[in-house]
Amino acid sequence: MSRLPSSVHITEEGPREGFQIEKGPIPTARKIELIDALSQTGLDAIQIVSFVNPKLVPGMADAEEVVRGITPRPGVRYTGLWLNERGFERALATKRLHLEGSVVLSASESFLVRNQNRRHADQVAEQHTMLELYKRHGVAVDSGLLMAAFGCNFEGDIPVERVVRLIGEMLQIASEHGVKLRSVTLADTMGWATPLSIKRVVGAVQDAHPDVDIALHLHDTRGMGIANAYAGLEMGVRRFDASVAGLGGCPFAGHAGAAGNVCTEDLVFMCEEMGIRTGIDLEALIDCALLAEEIVGHPLPGAVMKGGSLNERRRKAALA
Amino acid sequence: MSRLPSSVHITEEGPREGFQIEKGPIPTARKIELIDALSQTGLDAIQIVSFVNPKLVPGMADAEEVVRGITPRPGVRYTGLWLNERGFERALATKRLHLEGSVVLSASESFLVRNQNRRHADQVAEQHTMLELYKRHGVAVDSGLLMAAFGCNFEGDIPVERVVRLIGEMLQIASEHGVKLRSVTLADTMGWATPLSIKRVVGAVQDAHPDVDIALHLHDTRGMGIANAYAGLEMGVRRFDASVAGLGGCPFAGHAGAAGNVCTEDLVFMCEEMGIRTGIDLEALIDCALLAEEIVGHPLPGAVMKGGSLNERRRKAALA
Repeated sequence: MSRLPSSVHITEEGPREGFQIEKGPIPTARKIELIDALSQTGLDAIQIVSFVNPKLVPGMADAEEVVRGITPRPGVRYTGLWLNERGFERALATKRLHLEGSVVLSASESFLVRNQNRRHADQVAEQHTMLELYKRHGVAVDSGLLMAAFGCNFEGDIPVERVVRLIGEMLQIASEHGVKLRSVTLADTMGWATPLSIKRVVGAVQDAHPDVDIALHLHDTRGMGIANAYAGLEMGVRRFDASVAGLGGCPFAGHAGAAGNVCTEDLVFMCEEMGIRTGIDLEALIDCALLAEEIVGHPLPGAVMKGGSLNERRRKAALA
Repeated sequence: MSRLPSSVHITEEGPREGFQIEKGPIPTARKIELIDALSQTGLDAIQIVSFVNPKLVPGMADAEEVVRGITPRPGVRYTGLWLNERGFERALATKRLHLEGSVVLSASESFLVRNQNRRHADQVAEQHTMLELYKRHGVAVDSGLLMAAFGCNFEGDIPVERVVRLIGEMLQIASEHGVKLRSVTLADTMGWATPLSIKRVVGAVQDAHPDVDIALHLHDTRGMGIANAYAGLEMGVRRFDASVAGLGGCPFAGHAGAAGNVCTEDLVFMCEEMGIRTGIDLEALIDCALLAEEIVGHPLPGAVMKGGSLNERRRKAALA
């Protein structure tokens, strides 16, 4: 327990993760409403859209409109996701997003082929192209992302050594462009991680690359999301991606009815209850989760939004 | 990570926890169907009914019929829950249940009043009465149960010292009847625990009472169930109660829409994936979870039943 951090940083990915996978079309105005509500909770980094092929991901066809429609709150970084030059150029053209480049690899080539129609070598070449592009546009790069770091529906278990090697390759790719990656996100894209594998993989990467900060992007596909986040906290991890109400799920992961990202308000609840500061107002975030559920029109997996926080209970108990 | 046990014992409480809280009447035959299916999974302890006032808990009015209807599988202990002499006598009269006595206290007197209409002193007196009754009927007693050990909706946080003191009181009550309690269950009845409080409370009880085995009865009200179970495993806990598909929730806890017990198949998944043996067939248990969902007629919170286990994924990946 000794390595639990005193504070964590949470990047909210609900709008991007969630709205890209919902079946029914969600009105642009309602997406904007949720994003603006999230920006009032103390969250200071919100990924709001992805710039992907609208034929493949129709739920994100209105990305530009969403970006134009929000009311930016000072101090909040609004980001977008892109997978190629075309996507990056669309993000750049909005002129309203906080642009951050990152180096992206996948621990599973089979997943990469399905998700982005690329082999590993293509992905590496693409990263070089993107790094040049970022340089040309003065876009900072200080992080990396490794997809499917804990297992893959199409490839099975991922050896820890492969993860460590690929993080090394990622750092090397960046350094060839004079870029030093400050942090690397390990993504459990298809929900294969357990607390024990989180500890093993995070520990191995920390040992091999002690100067790189590790972030976790966890999916709750098999109910391990919060437990995996806890295991990360015990390893000293201080950066997490999460989705309000547990919105999301990868459209290319080949799951039916699988849960999305680890739920932001459940993660905030756990951290704050354990004395780990998040800077986020849990009650306001629960209201956002209920709004998200109303917007998508079906139950979402978040638990604290249903069970309620303990603050109100404590107040009432103290008065009784 | 070093204290993770090599195996755990899980007591299935879904039929009792779940069917007592469901609003619609569930046909007796369907309860029996689920119990018989659960007995084929490798589970060797299943709590199938409670003998409580049918006016207060109408869903359990058919307890005797359920007990009569099951097809007992050799090696499986079928148990029932009772809260007083009347309930015990009903259990005894079935002649088919495995009868185990236990000493039950609550860390929150306010909860005890709401749940059983008793003050702490009444509860202690009742335990003496029950221990005499168990002795008279030759019913073994080797465990205790502390309700609301991690917090209470009506009383707020529960000091660790109180938990340790009450476990001491429980052991003392038993010893006055010549009974030595081998294990004590700490129940997070209203879902207040976090992994950190699990570690603190379990650690304090282990320090004060090193010869008592600790079991955990966890509710997933705020999404911490599996993370709390993991924290327990890290403290060396080897006994858990759980509910298939996450059935359940306490009818007297004052929650609307709150989740039930930690989900059995999610717990089995986590343990087996981490190399901790459960003796339970995960795929057969997932089938039971789907059956439970069909029986109650609404979605249940289990995750692995929706996301699927990894064994089939691994098999397919190996063939690809």
